[in-house]
Amino acid sequence: MIRFALFGAGRAGRIHAGNIARHPRAELAAVYDVVRPLAERLAEQHGSCAVADPGAVWPAAAIDAVLIASSTDTHVDLLRAALRSGKATYCEKPIDFDLSRARSVVSEAAGTDVPVAVGFRRRCLPEYQEIRRRIADGEIGRVETVRLVSRDHRPPSRAYVDVSGGFLRDKTIHYFDLIPWLVGERPTEVHAAGSCLVDPMFADAGDIDTAMVLLRMPSGALCHIENGRRAVYGFDERIEVFGAKGMLQSRPPALSSVARFAASGVRSGRYPDLYGAESFAGLLDAFVSALESEQPVEPTLAEGLQAQNIAEAAVESLRGNRPVTIAY
Amino acid sequence: MIRFALFGAGRAGRIHAGNIARHPRAELAAVYDVVRPLAERLAEQHGSCAVADPGAVWPAAAIDAVLIASSTDTHVDLLRAALRSGKATYCEKPIDFDLSRARSVVSEAAGTDVPVAVGFRRRCLPEYQEIRRRIADGEIGRVETVRLVSRDHRPPSRAYVDVSGGFLRDKTIHYFDLIPWLVGERPTEVHAAGSCLVDPMFADAGDIDTAMVLLRMPSGALCHIENGRRAVYGFDERIEVFGAKGMLQSRPPALSSVARFAASGVRSGRYPDLYGAESFAGLLDAFVSALESEQPVEPTLAEGLQAQNIAEAAVESLRGNRPVTIAY
Amino acid sequence: MIRFALFGAGRAGRIHAGNIARHPRAELAAVYDVVRPLAERLAEQHGSCAVADPGAVWPAAAIDAVLIASSTDTHVDLLRAALRSGKATYCEKPIDFDLSRARSVVSEAAGTDVPVAVGFRRRCLPEYQEIRRRIADGEIGRVETVRLVSRDHRPPSRAYVDVSGGFLRDKTIHYFDLIPWLVGERPTEVHAAGSCLVDPMFADAGDIDTAMVLLRMPSGALCHIENGRRAVYGFDERIEVFGAKGMLQSRPPALSSVARFAASGVRSGRYPDLYGAESFAGLLDAFVSALESEQPVEPTLAEGLQAQNIAEAAVESLRGNRPVTIAY
Amino acid sequence: MIRFALFGAGRAGRIHAGNIARHPRAELAAVYDVVRPLAERLAEQHGSCAVADPGAVWPAAAIDAVLIASSTDTHVDLLRAALRSGKATYCEKPIDFDLSRARSVVSEAAGTDVPVAVGFRRRCLPEYQEIRRRIADGEIGRVETVRLVSRDHRPPSRAYVDVSGGFLRDKTIHYFDLIPWLVGERPTEVHAAGSCLVDPMFADAGDIDTAMVLLRMPSGALCHIENGRRAVYGFDERIEVFGAKGMLQSRPPALSSVARFAASGVRSGRYPDLYGAESFAGLLDAFVSALESEQPVEPTLAEGLQAQNIAEAAVESLRGNRPVTIAY
Repeated sequence: MIRFALFGAGRAGRIHAGNIARHPRAELAAVYDVVRPLAERLAEQHGSCAVADPGAVWPAAAIDAVLIASSTDTHVDLLRAALRSGKATYCEKPIDFDLSRARSVVSEAAGTDVPVAVGFRRRCLPEYQEIRRRIADGEIGRVETVRLVSRDHRPPSRAYVDVSGGFLRDKTIHYFDLIPWLVGERPTEVHAAGSCLVDPMFADAGDIDTAMVLLRMPSGALCHIENGRRAVYGFDERIEVFGAKGMLQSRPPALSSVARFAASGVRSGRYPDLYGAESFAGLLDAFVSALESEQPVEPTLAEGLQAQNIAEAAVESLRGNRPVTIAY
Repeated sequence: MIRFALFGAGRAGRIHAGNIARHPRAELAAVYDVVRPLAERLAEQHGSCAVADPGAVWPAAAIDAVLIASSTDTHVDLLRAALRSGKATYCEKPIDFDLSRARSVVSEAAGTDVPVAVGFRRRCLPEYQEIRRRIADGEIGRVETVRLVSRDHRPPSRAYVDVSGGFLRDKTIHYFDLIPWLVGERPTEVHAAGSCLVDPMFADAGDIDTAMVLLRMPSGALCHIENGRRAVYGFDERIEVFGAKGMLQSRPPALSSVARFAASGVRSGRYPDLYGAESFAGLLDAFVSALESEQPVEPTLAEGLQAQNIAEAAVESLRGNRPVTIAY
Repeated sequence: MIRFALFGAGRAGRIHAGNIARHPRAELAAVYDVVRPLAERLAEQHGSCAVADPGAVWPAAAIDAVLIASSTDTHVDLLRAALRSGKATYCEKPIDFDLSRARSVVSEAAGTDVPVAVGFRRRCLPEYQEIRRRIADGEIGRVETVRLVSRDHRPPSRAYVDVSGGFLRDKTIHYFDLIPWLVGERPTEVHAAGSCLVDPMFADAGDIDTAMVLLRMPSGALCHIENGRRAVYGFDERIEVFGAKGMLQSRPPALSSVARFAASGVRSGRYPDLYGAESFAGLLDAFVSALESEQPVEPTLAEGLQAQNIAEAAVESLRGNRPVTIAY
Repeated sequence: MIRFALFGAGRAGRIHAGNIARHPRAELAAVYDVVRPLAERLAEQHGSCAVADPGAVWPAAAIDAVLIASSTDTHVDLLRAALRSGKATYCEKPIDFDLSRARSVVSEAAGTDVPVAVGFRRRCLPEYQEIRRRIADGEIGRVETVRLVSRDHRPPSRAYVDVSGGFLRDKTIHYFDLIPWLVGERPTEVHAAGSCLVDPMFADAGDIDTAMVLLRMPSGALCHIENGRRAVYGFDERIEVFGAKGMLQSRPPALSSVARFAASGVRSGRYPDLYGAESFAGLLDAFVSALESEQPVEPTLAEGLQAQNIAEAAVESLRGNRPVTIAY
């Protein structure tokens, strides 16, 4: 049984709390939030005690692991405390919007053997795991191109956008982690193009809502990501990986289990968002299982930093409207 | 170049006339219809002469083949004349609604080497030819079951129903020919159930509009046909053949080449009727090609009779509400 | 929290035990099996005590509900004891192979308000619930035909076949429950045809392995069930319900989330069996939820008897090779 | 009846000759090729006379239209002759690899009313026409993104590559014509990335075999083209156009009309190349129909030049690895 202390009782924190409570081998031992009533409510729901003083978490023998789901600006300090305490840690992405701060904590961690994972949860989806395995098995030969599209169903709130770090750092970064992990090499160059088409609110916030990103791999493989903030027909995420011997294509999550054939045509339902709460649970389970079996946890902090390096280069590319070499 | 005389300038005759005219190695040399202006119009459209006297067709050296698309009650006399003249003949199904008359002309034909084909045109559809070939190649092992559904888009007129011979003899008979041809054995027993659900007009005419038919094969294989007169979403015909080593499933003709993903769901278009005029052309082409290469034509008259035998047993089964052994 | 006593620690019993243990609002309080070590092992795995004397279950205040998953010949006695004790009961199908015994216990139950459910678990699958709701909502107008196919992946053992009651009573009965529930009327007549094609073992056991069953509804609707014991490509269950205004078609459970496009063609994976353990859990959850909210449980004993009545008529039809009117 | 003189009896010329011969309202009146025996053979096959002197074509009253399928370096001179003669002309793309020569002949044409069409044949495919119409009808609202992938089945020969002008000018140019035509605006900027992954032969020839191209539209819409020279599973061309109110997605040409469900999985066949000879016929038919009805022909010479302008900017972008503003 892994006993967790949870930092952050906001949207992500609440999902994690529920997942920990439901997990047969995990327990929610403590919750902290800067807004105390939020932490109290969550603690009540899931039968654990709110922590008055976050500092009390670190020495507590009754706490095995820490889950950091608080606001991004608190991540680095909490990660440092976690490294000092030696407690296994799962940290929501990103590490920090300031790359030098992120780099410094990754360096610190490198000198320890404290297990720290970063929350890129697409790695836990069965279809992505299957694609990765089948690429590694050589099923499609050398990878030549990747085409990925991801469109949210509805745009987030302005409040969310304002603290998100921008579209490329907030959302597209998932694919900056996913694609290298799938194909086994990391890009050398990125070119990002963006537009504000969904809602002028994004432009007001200095952000984009529609992105197209090209990644160039050392092998010569080319990858394309289309990423958007709204699709009226539901959540839409699909990938195809094309190689010398064939193509692997993810099938979108079944629209509906029932199709209707009517005079007006054939209809299936809308896409469900299988990339939401469910995928958080997958990563939690992988984390718990790794701790139990004393295997390394992943995605590692270094991988978290790698995705941020790509995201930063993408932001620079977007601003300068030119391809940018990625510094790792 | 095969020069055709066409008997019948009704709906089927007009389709055949157009197909003959378009065929690079066929020519419409003469048209006859009991309603002379119909024949004249068709002759004009396709650049051939209407025949004043049908008797003139048989001795004419400028006529290589005869296509019988006139009303069913004229088929047997025309077939007999064709057999006497020795001209290759393509006759629309059925041979005759009176089985003893049909049998007698089939016997006559058996004593000659005049090529006579009957118009079961599903045999010319590429998907059915592919399924037949793959079954014969042993791809799915021994055939165990067949499931076929066929639904017209819109019901025919009352006038058509009145001369059709009834649903099982008019429409379902196509599958009484198709299934034995696909799987390589002919049924020993049939059980037909029917309802009038689409339009009371069918019941008024003493007919049904919805049928379910079970066929039992000598091998023990079981076949099911669902056949209906109306589907609001368009023409719908699909088959699956299941065997010891797998299943072959026809894909319905592409609904539309474009799918629409909208807030209300995903939509494709309606089914086109790929089993209409196009399939007549396929059978004509097969007939012309067989004549040119001096290969046997098919479906043969004997096969035409076989399908009628099954249809008659099905009618008897429907009336008596009991399985009926098929007499060949 | 509903505390269950489980009768039967065989295959079904083990699935139920696991589902009860995993259910957040259910608890496995006792297990009984005529083979005591089986019960002990299950009790150990799920942290409850094996019951020395089954009679102790009925008066026990610590037992809220009873789950009967023992062999069919024990069902009626256990149901009677349950009715006397007043404990809510979930009984695996069928009630009893002897229809008169089944009828008598259904009569007894009718005089009580003890909640008793029978295990036709397809009712709990989301696609069937969706189809039922959409039919009831009038989406496809009056139902005209139903086509259902169900093929197991691999045949069961001879031992299973010997106690199964025969294919129609063991497997096809699921659809004798499902179809009336879906379309809102029960059949008046059944005609069953069967073959032994998969394995001579079935014929040795006096059974069939391939069935085609026609059901006639009071409205004139016609239903067809194809049911088989083996499909090399995996479990295969699909339904389409056709009506005056369109068709609803269940989409088979996604073959695989990844498709492969290779030189040899496009491939998806095999069908998973989503109708196995998972569907047991659905019915358990529905049962627990109904008890908690004091709603009626279902399928009711009377519905369980209804499906058996259809199955018996189907057996009679198969033997006599003729349509049989169903007595309810 | 439109009587054609055909220039060029190579691969494209042979396809055109066959299509003209099969067209009910077109006739192949003359064929010219610099390799005289090629022209003679084609003339013989299709029953027309090879032309000894190409100059004889222009004044010939028996020639209504000219089809230019000779090597690219001859196009401009032939176009000039055609403009002087006033004969309707269909010219294979591109106009000329030298943009200033292409521009000059387009200017000349602008001062005449001679109908001249350029062979971008994807415009004639029904799925693209449907997508264009549905976008114009507002079905998906404002267009936000386009994703197109096109992969040939097998790479062309080295000889072809050497005279092709390079991948972007030879193949990707089809989509530089298609996309603006579909969405109703022309790109302002292009960024092309390329690799040689399929065969080192392309690199030897100074060419690429795998391209990813980003187009930026005045409206802010972003378009992505993936284009490749080889796909082991067959020809692969698909598009999706995403907008504020939904998405239109072309369905790839049916893989096969029959699917096989085997123990090893579900298989459909390979993609056919529906973009080959058949699509040439579509454009010929559109050309003939436009001439007959005295409607303007299209794609116009100016549109042919527009696509070349994009292709040139793409080549410059590829060389400089930077986005390039397109000069029209």
